[in-house]
Amino acid sequence: MVRRSAETRVHVREHAFEGKGSITVRDLLRGPEEMYEKGRVFAHTTLQPGCSIGYHVHENESETYYILSGTAAFDDNGEKTTVHAGDVTFTPCGQGHGIENCGDEPLELIALILYR
Amino acid sequence: MVRRSAETRVHVREHAFEGKGSITVRDLLRGPEEMYEKGRVFAHTTLQPGCSIGYHVHENESETYYILSGTAAFDDNGEKTTVHAGDVTFTPCGQGHGIENCGDEPLELIALILYR
Repeated sequence: MVRRSAETRVHVREHAFEGKGSITVRDLLRGPEEMYEKGRVFAHTTLQPGCSIGYHVHENESETYYILSGTAAFDDNGEKTTVHAGDVTFTPCGQGHGIENCGDEPLELIALILYR
Repeated sequence: MVRRSAETRVHVREHAFEGKGSITVRDLLRGPEEMYEKGRVFAHTTLQPGCSIGYHVHENESETYYILSGTAAFDDNGEKTTVHAGDVTFTPCGQGHGIENCGDEPLELIALILYR
């Protein structure tokens, strides 16, 4: 099956985990059904400059971000760092993360949440 | 954990599924271990113009491609179509696919294989 770009489901989420501004999430797969119940998110997420996803912990699942473009301040389970295009962040079950676009361009990333 | 771009594992695969030329695969997660045994591939794959992944069937797993850039001829379980940046292809368990870069630029895609 091919799902054209215009057919993908896009939603805007305000203050995700008490973050700043909004994020735009393009679902690449539709929830657990299309993921054979192995996870719940496979998405292309965009944060405009100054926007963020607040810190949150993943229980019983991991989340991976793959940075496609832009620059971000990343909170890696309490440790602060900067991530750029090509970097991968992996937040295993029981750990937390948060991310903020600290650059001048949109921050584009692929997010994958897999169940433990 | 943050894995920097330069630390990601990149491998070149020749004639993937009897395809043309080679493909370059950047592993975003390392196999089933980092995927909690829920799948086996989460990768950024590049095909230069004229290169292809030959047609193959996925048993007991699905594979999703998310086209980041470029233009490709896609064989969707026997049906031929053209895909572009932003399109998602979903090959469920028991179906097959193949893809060829039919454009002038590199074809970049995210590949995700999840077990059934």
